[in-house]
Amino acid sequence: MHTTIQVELGDRSYPIVIGRGLLGGGFDLGGHLRGQDCLVVTNEIVGPLYLDKLLVNLGKHNVESIALPDGEVHKTLATMQSILDRLVETRANRDTTVVALGGGVVGDIAGFAAACYMRGVDFVQVPTTLLAQVDSSVGGKTGVNHEQGKNLIGAFHQPRIVLIDTDTLATLPDRELRAGLAEVIKYGAICDAAFVDWLEDNMTRLLARDADALAYAIGRSCELKAEVVAEDEREAGRRAILNFGHTFGHAIERCQGFGDWLHGEAVAAGMIMAAQLSGLASGETDRLRSLVAAAGLPVTPPDIAAADWMAAMGMDKKVKGRKLRFVLLDGIGASRVTADYDERRLDELVRAA
Amino acid sequence: MHTTIQVELGDRSYPIVIGRGLLGGGFDLGGHLRGQDCLVVTNEIVGPLYLDKLLVNLGKHNVESIALPDGEVHKTLATMQSILDRLVETRANRDTTVVALGGGVVGDIAGFAAACYMRGVDFVQVPTTLLAQVDSSVGGKTGVNHEQGKNLIGAFHQPRIVLIDTDTLATLPDRELRAGLAEVIKYGAICDAAFVDWLEDNMTRLLARDADALAYAIGRSCELKAEVVAEDEREAGRRAILNFGHTFGHAIERCQGFGDWLHGEAVAAGMIMAAQLSGLASGETDRLRSLVAAAGLPVTPPDIAAADWMAAMGMDKKVKGRKLRFVLLDGIGASRVTADYDERRLDELVRAA
Repeated sequence: MHTTIQVELGDRSYPIVIGRGLLGGGFDLGGHLRGQDCLVVTNEIVGPLYLDKLLVNLGKHNVESIALPDGEVHKTLATMQSILDRLVETRANRDTTVVALGGGVVGDIAGFAAACYMRGVDFVQVPTTLLAQVDSSVGGKTGVNHEQGKNLIGAFHQPRIVLIDTDTLATLPDRELRAGLAEVIKYGAICDAAFVDWLEDNMTRLLARDADALAYAIGRSCELKAEVVAEDEREAGRRAILNFGHTFGHAIERCQGFGDWLHGEAVAAGMIMAAQLSGLASGETDRLRSLVAAAGLPVTPPDIAAADWMAAMGMDKKVKGRKLRFVLLDGIGASRVTADYDERRLDELVRAA
Repeated sequence: MHTTIQVELGDRSYPIVIGRGLLGGGFDLGGHLRGQDCLVVTNEIVGPLYLDKLLVNLGKHNVESIALPDGEVHKTLATMQSILDRLVETRANRDTTVVALGGGVVGDIAGFAAACYMRGVDFVQVPTTLLAQVDSSVGGKTGVNHEQGKNLIGAFHQPRIVLIDTDTLATLPDRELRAGLAEVIKYGAICDAAFVDWLEDNMTRLLARDADALAYAIGRSCELKAEVVAEDEREAGRRAILNFGHTFGHAIERCQGFGDWLHGEAVAAGMIMAAQLSGLASGETDRLRSLVAAAGLPVTPPDIAAADWMAAMGMDKKVKGRKLRFVLLDGIGASRVTADYDERRLDELVRAA
């Protein structure tokens, strides 16, 4: 039994299939590949847990696999090149499919390799972390980090299909589950007040890993992101609302060095800062803060000097014409991208932090 | 005075502007850029000749420049990364334009960097070799070589505009001019018999660098390529006819080590082999051979062992489902992509070579 959400992008449309036990035979992934050959890209943590299941699922195919070292620090052009080397070595052709089995880092690197190998081969995602399931599976953003900034190098490359087996969340560390919930909360905050209500009512179930609650939260998150992306695939405008909390969040990650704070944790604190900058009625900011805290996520940033904040944000990709733009809330469930905000309040926020 | 050819690719359509004296002020390139910032990518040979002119043309913009080392051997991911590093260093944003000033290698690497930086920034081509003018300016193929094969890593990324100043051909070495003519002949051979007639009548003028003859040959080549690409941007089918002579040609380049034979020279000999494999009436193959010879290009491949041919072609990108496909002629001006050919004849061809 599974739910399917269709991401509508013209001839690049694709389904996201969500359910339990899909990897182990509940869903025939092989039946959805174009060619006979595939390269599974995973990492040294996820591979030992789920690669065998995936290999059985793809039993009728020629499958090669490669395990990347774990961690954001390896999300580099050099790691991406190791995948390309493997594709060349195995004489992969244009009908070869690259399958990413793992979290967001694995998906981003593998997707970028698929985008670049022979100028683009098919790509399939099997995300195994909550963050990757609700964030990386929709939108086609792939890429690697530059030492000066996150995701500065990459491509838009839509997957052919995304397979989300919620059973893989059983092995996810608590801290990473909570980090994924930050992005789930984000979707509610920017465009669906009713989903925020639902999250307030169901946070306990989510933290207890109730399968139905997780499947609903993942599905709704993917739907909301898919709607935004369908309107603006290349992020010319509205898609930028998905960066709510991310301008502050990326600055936190950068100042702490990638890896000390998880992405979702940085986004969590960043969302509260963005809500404060929005000048919402204080009850609304409090409500968002309570929900973030209920998910076990930080509501205040780490100690960063004001000058470091500004420098880190000045290098942020969300800058347009050198003037900082933020995603701000008009209220819970409504957002806009704007360069029109109270600069004094921004100054106070980064000084207080 | 200039000619404009529009490449029709929906919202990725762009003009190719062809004429004399365009770089030095005959055409306002700056007026066609979206933002204020650009990075000119050139190389150590072309930069000293034409960079100053381009900088004057772009006088109202913030222009940075980078000169790559010259040669196909530097068409690597590492060189591409040096461009990305420069973009990051200069805090290039999404409105920055990457301008390629040089031959095909510069265009391919710079275009790939533009495709990957922040998942895609604007790209402008100012091709200065005949080969780049008739080949790389249409089609959006960008990329770098892998040590195991040419152009194995790359992206489709259409330029915003292509500026072809035929005056830049004045400094092109004779051997490179002739190599460019190989691709010009190719367009006639695969889809325009009348253009082959014209080339037979005008080869002497072209070799003497008659400006009008060159402008006509470049314009017609771009038109023919644009028609093919417009039908099949991602090379799912018909676009592959542009690879006429290239399966053999790439094998020649590979077996000789990149750089010993120029790409156009390898394609020239490859076209004759492909014509022979086509089983044309012998008069037609002779006619093509005479035209190639008149352009001062090789009509026979270098000495390569049969086993090396097959190995080199087995790794060729034109392989589909592991079975070799070739672009063959039905006659001068008509071509098809097919896996249906006389295998004995292929065997004879590579043994004779």
